[in-house]
Amino acid sequence: MNRLVAFLKSWQDEVTRALEAFEPGRRFRIERWERPGGGGGESRGLEGGEVLERAGVNFSDVHGRLPETLAREMSGESAEFRAFGVSIVIHPRNPWAPTTHANFRCIARGDQLYFGGGADLTPSLLVEEDARHFHKTLKAACDLCAPRLYDELKAACDRYFYLPHRGEHRGVGGIFFDQMQGPIDERIRWLETLAGAFLPAYLPILERRRHTPYGDAEREAQLIQRGRYAEFNLVWDKGTTFGLQTQGRTESILMSLPPLARWGAPVEPEPNTPRAALLETLRRPREWIATSRAPASPPSTA
Amino acid sequence: MNRLVAFLKSWQDEVTRALEAFEPGRRFRIERWERPGGGGGESRGLEGGEVLERAGVNFSDVHGRLPETLAREMSGESAEFRAFGVSIVIHPRNPWAPTTHANFRCIARGDQLYFGGGADLTPSLLVEEDARHFHKTLKAACDLCAPRLYDELKAACDRYFYLPHRGEHRGVGGIFFDQMQGPIDERIRWLETLAGAFLPAYLPILERRRHTPYGDAEREAQLIQRGRYAEFNLVWDKGTTFGLQTQGRTESILMSLPPLARWGAPVEPEPNTPRAALLETLRRPREWIATSRAPASPPSTA
Repeated sequence: MNRLVAFLKSWQDEVTRALEAFEPGRRFRIERWERPGGGGGESRGLEGGEVLERAGVNFSDVHGRLPETLAREMSGESAEFRAFGVSIVIHPRNPWAPTTHANFRCIARGDQLYFGGGADLTPSLLVEEDARHFHKTLKAACDLCAPRLYDELKAACDRYFYLPHRGEHRGVGGIFFDQMQGPIDERIRWLETLAGAFLPAYLPILERRRHTPYGDAEREAQLIQRGRYAEFNLVWDKGTTFGLQTQGRTESILMSLPPLARWGAPVEPEPNTPRAALLETLRRPREWIATSRAPASPPSTA
Repeated sequence: MNRLVAFLKSWQDEVTRALEAFEPGRRFRIERWERPGGGGGESRGLEGGEVLERAGVNFSDVHGRLPETLAREMSGESAEFRAFGVSIVIHPRNPWAPTTHANFRCIARGDQLYFGGGADLTPSLLVEEDARHFHKTLKAACDLCAPRLYDELKAACDRYFYLPHRGEHRGVGGIFFDQMQGPIDERIRWLETLAGAFLPAYLPILERRRHTPYGDAEREAQLIQRGRYAEFNLVWDKGTTFGLQTQGRTESILMSLPPLARWGAPVEPEPNTPRAALLETLRRPREWIATSRAPASPPSTA
């Protein structure tokens, strides 16, 4: 565990430094906090940057009595838990630069360890090259861990980041898992490998889109997409709703929310535009890597 | 029932006309819709006005098989339900003009009728005179129905519109009830009386604040307050979460969301400002009418 905690802390530093490089003269605001029931964390937030309109890079390591809702979902006997991890959300200002989210964590109940996490991308305007780069980089990391792992985690990501009330996915996906199986050393290595792929998957996209010229229509598309983002996080995301209902640290939980979001009458995009292509993809997720085979079907229950 | 349906439809028209009077040359967009399981409605929305940045005045009358979640909360034997009502949300552009919400409805399960509704006010900057006018007008209507009714419905409103994760109420309150008792004719009359108080409670406030000069700081306070509004509706409001989870009509349900909302690092307001006064009131609701006595305490359960 100490190895993983140390890795996550230094990963938090690495991501912080990489993002600060986009904002000369600006630093993340650091807030250290303690949890009344046990443990604490360090939240890092940056708002109003030239490139980063809002970003959060949060570490937490909390423990204490296992909440009842968690007890029902985790096997084991212990009435105590520990949960630690890093959560990242980046809302760039430029509408051509997609929003991204990554999270890697471990929840322990006695000897039972639940490793979870992932990374996903939410554009407002679809640039296929960017979505492909993001997926290709994550797949390369998955391939270092196990064959077909990418297919499985990609499908899980599409399933999880979905808004049933809109019939839309949150973005163009990525990877997601909430309980990784296997020997503990292997799982820790996997987590480190996958987390290590996040910056190479995202930074080149941010780098090449941060100065792309845009107008009101692109900004409006971005604000509408961010409204959807807020809807997903507040209505459907398990971590967020669980955190709010069990009196977690509100500012840290809600650092994922966008800096500015719009709601209004539905706008149908012009056909054959990056906005139309995005909405189509949100309604029917794509395979981003040509050689990727679909995961094996689960056994029929009929 | 027919009487109440007819009243609600004509009330929808009255509110629509009254709001359109603030927007010469602009009309509500009308959408009639049908529910696959039975019934339908008429949603009316207006966006981007000079005074009304976003407003919705929705009527619906749906019926069909009782959803399981409702069945658990309502007595009666019938497996069928009918629900009809009018829902209003007004987000003015001027930060000195408060957001308001009103809703009056009836849910029927066989012979069991559940009358519910209310009206409440959410300023971004506290103007005591406005909050008092709103409450005084609603109290006058309550007094026409029954003594002490206002005290009861005011307290219920404070209890309901509360964000536990912020330790804040949604606004400065109003009246709220979700199951009114009594003979049916009396309940219909009460509903009509209370609904009839909404425009006199709100319009004079909108009228006198719509041209108040404001700057960036007031607009920012409004955007932050609207973020809280979205949080309440998406996380805690029973109607919204129930509607989204049972595949209600998304655009009608989410017409309550603000046109533009901000999330960011917490901002402490200057002391002794209308913003500071608001935040204080959100944390500890006030009695707005001097002569109002607190409602009788419920019997001790100790």
